[in-house]
Formats: sequence, structure tokens, C-alpha cells
Amino acid sequence: MKDITTWIDEYQKGSRFGLKGKVLLKKNSKFQEILIIESDYYGKALMLDRCWMTSMRDEKYYHECLVHPALSSIKEKSRILIIGGGDGGTARECLKYSQVEKIDLVEIDEEVIKASKKFLQEIGGTAWIDKRLTIHIDDGVKWVEKAKNNFYDCIFIDCSDPSEFSNLLFTDTFYKECKRILTQKGILATQSESPESFKNIHIHILKSLKKVFKLSETMYSFVPIYPSGIWSWTFASKGELNLSTPCCNEVTTIEKGCDIWNLNFQNAAFKMMPNKIVKELNS
Amino acid sequence: MKDITTWIDEYQKGSRFGLKGKVLLKKNSKFQEILIIESDYYGKALMLDRCWMTSMRDEKYYHECLVHPALSSIKEKSRILIIGGGDGGTARECLKYSQVEKIDLVEIDEEVIKASKKFLQEIGGTAWIDKRLTIHIDDGVKWVEKAKNNFYDCIFIDCSDPSEFSNLLFTDTFYKECKRILTQKGILATQSESPESFKNIHIHILKSLKKVFKLSETMYSFVPIYPSGIWSWTFASKGELNLSTPCCNEVTTIEKGCDIWNLNFQNAAFKMMPNKIVKELNS
Repeated sequence: MKDITTWIDEYQKGSRFGLKGKVLLKKNSKFQEILIIESDYYGKALMLDRCWMTSMRDEKYYHECLVHPALSSIKEKSRILIIGGGDGGTARECLKYSQVEKIDLVEIDEEVIKASKKFLQEIGGTAWIDKRLTIHIDDGVKWVEKAKNNFYDCIFIDCSDPSEFSNLLFTDTFYKECKRILTQKGILATQSESPESFKNIHIHILKSLKKVFKLSETMYSFVPIYPSGIWSWTFASKGELNLSTPCCNEVTTIEKGCDIWNLNFQNAAFKMMPNKIVKELNS
Repeated sequence: MKDITTWIDEYQKGSRFGLKGKVLLKKNSKFQEILIIESDYYGKALMLDRCWMTSMRDEKYYHECLVHPALSSIKEKSRILIIGGGDGGTARECLKYSQVEKIDLVEIDEEVIKASKKFLQEIGGTAWIDKRLTIHIDDGVKWVEKAKNNFYDCIFIDCSDPSEFSNLLFTDTFYKECKRILTQKGILATQSESPESFKNIHIHILKSLKKVFKLSETMYSFVPIYPSGIWSWTFASKGELNLSTPCCNEVTTIEKGCDIWNLNFQNAAFKMMPNKIVKELNS
């Protein structure tokens, strides 16, 4: 099977996005189908239940935009929680900050981590051997329920689209629990879907976070392999949200090393809400 | 043929983006293959030489970003030139401005206009019967060569990717001729390709315009059906370029009617250059 080049597509509402490549792994875990291919142009790529999750070529569009608006702006960031993020990309970006002391990465599907470590090593990179990272194979919702009040400085929800086993990650109840375990100046950062391909979920996330948290802001940018190519990330806090102000000198160095994100880009991305979404939210 | 639902894909560097639908027209003109489909989610869509040009669902992402940064900012805009733009969407957006007195739309391929008028009526809309619009079936490069000095207030280059018959639209020579026929405060607005899927052409356009014109600025936004979903538009002038300042009260009304564009969105889009492109341009 490995030597056959084929087209693998994600299908969404009468459109499809496909990569040509060789299948390196096709496996059914307890939760989902895991597919890894070696593609001609996007490099190695991961698909879960036939939805593209990440690829070597474009993963930075996603991971840099999830992590840096949050961690570049908060001063205190010793304890981090990542829910999902089994490919390791979010942890890798977090570990660029020397103040990060401990990351709990809570991934429900052990097989995703095994497959990522084996086939997508470059995405996690040295994160996999960094002593600050602890991997927990657990349900993110349950983990959050069990966590102490005011414990994490930053929570990243790095999950797939709503499905049978991830639905609870998109509820008010879950967001309230996240709020409870966040420190006063901490930030919740979540991918918040595409305003074009998943408009209803997108608007639901924005409204829920606005209801539950004191402050929330949404940025829009690009992820070429995701449906429509338009993606969003939302940041929320119960205390402060100074996303445009870098917290420390280290940010300048981190900025230089990034492929997509920089502070100018970020400040702009927070204003890239398509007018039809502005109108819908104001109606 | 018309009743069969099928997948139609654009192929780019080992990736493909496809729409499912019925083929309404498949025709070879003197210049290219013209394909129009009725797709399930994106509605009617136009493909030229197997590249997606526009669709009912997402055409505003493209047309609003090409037209409004230019026309919302210049005071004098009586004479407009559109090169390409055979689907009518650019003309439709231009005609929202009451000060526009005359548009010359110069499309090389008459068959594109015929097909758009027949199958994609909603994109051109009332532009097709607006007396301010004159269609010329001609080569845009030759049209520009023949035009008078300081004649047009705005030139829109609304063309397909470089190909055998459109290559000359991406040269310094052509840009110099455009500059010659533009008024002193006029603006050249061109689609400038994807920084991700067509990086070399993208950077070539930016550098050429910077060399030829006194001022130029590039904005980045989304076009879901184009390769990578990231697209860019560049605006250039030999005199003034005050893209963030609306010229007149009419802009507020036009803004309200837009699906994607508004002034905040625009100002942000001019700062959405991915960091790797920033670094490449500065190197």
C-alpha cells in the first residue's frame, strides 16, 4: 500500500480538498480513523476521520496563530494546559518561551500521539523530549473538571471539529470550567473554526465565550488545508486581555523565528472579521 | 451531460480543490477552455483552463477586495478601465459609486462574457445593462498601449494566472504603460496572486510595481476557491495612495452593502503579510 500514490480528499458541503501522496499509516483507533500520508507538495500530513488536521507545509499557519497571541502577551505563564494537540505543534510553539515551566498535554487518543511521534516528528520536534512537557492520555473535559481553581496561566483548546467525542469541548459548561481553572490574568485560547465553512459553530463559539468570559477577541487568518482556507482563533480572559502588548524581550526573538505570525500580522488578524459576520453578530 | 453530478477539480502542485456539481457549459474558445458548473454549495462557478475563477458563493471575497480599496479612497473616479473581468463582478462593484461615469471593460475572450451573461447573470447583475459600461473585445496590453496619457482614474487588472496569453499583463513594460495612462492621483489595482501557492509570481508582482510606481501597497485576504485560500491584491499610484481614508459619504452606504469588505477589514488586510514573505522581501 505504501508505494501507491493516490488522492486523499476531505469532503465538506459539496467541495473537496485533496493532497496527492502515499499512505504511510491508516489505522482505526478507539475514537477515529487516523491517516498519515506523504504528499508531494504539503509534505507529510495527518487526517483524522477524513478531515485534514495538519501538514508539514502549512502547520505553522495554525500553530503560530493559536499560541503566540496568548503567550506573547501574558507575563505569568509557568503552567500551561493543552487539550488535544496530539501532533505536538502547539507544545513546540509554547516551549519557545523560557518562562513556561510545565505543560500538561491532555490528548484523548493515544494513537494520534504515537502516529505523530513516528511519522510527523518535525512538528513536535524537541517538544517530545522536553522535560517541561507531560503527556496525559485522558478526556480533556474530565481533566478540566478535576483541575484546581486558578491553576493554569494558559489553556489551549487544540481540538478537531465538533464530533461525537469532541462535542463537549464547545459548550458553555466546558468554558465555565476552563474559566474556573484559569488564573486571574490567564488566557483561554481556542481554535474557533471557519466563519465560511462552519459559520454556525463559529458564531456559537464566539457568543459562548463572550457570555462566559469577561473579555474575548477573535482573530482570522489562513490555513490552506482547512475547509475554505479561512480559519479563526478566539482568546478569552476573566481578568485582562492585552493581546497587542508584548510581555517581554523574548517575544522579539520568537517573532523573528516565525513563518507566519508577527505582532503586526497579529494586530491586523484581530480585525479581519468578514463584514457578513460583523453584521450577523450585531443583528 | 447536464444532468450528471460530478467532481470538477483544479489541480495545483500536488493538491486539488474540487466542487461537486452539474456541468452547464464546456466550450473551447480561441484562448481557453471555459467550464461552468452548477455546484451544490458554491452555486454556479466558472473555470478557465481548469482553474477556478469565481463562484456565486465566494465571488465577493475577490471582487470587493479588488475594487473598494481603490474606489473608496480616490476622489476623482470618472473614467475606469477594467482589464479582464469578463464575469462582470468588478464592473458591478465599480458601478456602486455614483461618480463613475464611464467604464471600459477590455476582455480578450468574448466567449467568457457570453458565458457569464448567460449562466452567471447575478455576478454582473445590472452592470450588463448599465450605460456607463462599455465592453471591448480586445487584448488588454494593446488597449493600454493605444490609450492616451493621464486618461484613466483607475485601472483594474482582473486577470487569470500567468499563461501564454496573459503573461504580458505581469511585466514591467505593461505596468509602465499603465502608469502612463493613469491620472496623477489615479490608482492601479491588480490581483497579485497567492503568497503561498504562487509565491514567485506574487513577489515578482510586488517588486515590479514598487520599481515602476512611486507608491504601492499589498493587501491579503481570503478567496476560498483559489489555491491555498490566501489571495492578494496590490494597489499602486504615481502620485497619492491614501487607501485608509474614505473619499466621500457614499462609502458608508457601500460598506453596509458589502459581504466581506469594510474599512476596518481593509486596513487590517494591508498588514496581513505572512512573516516569511516579510523576511523574503527584506532580504
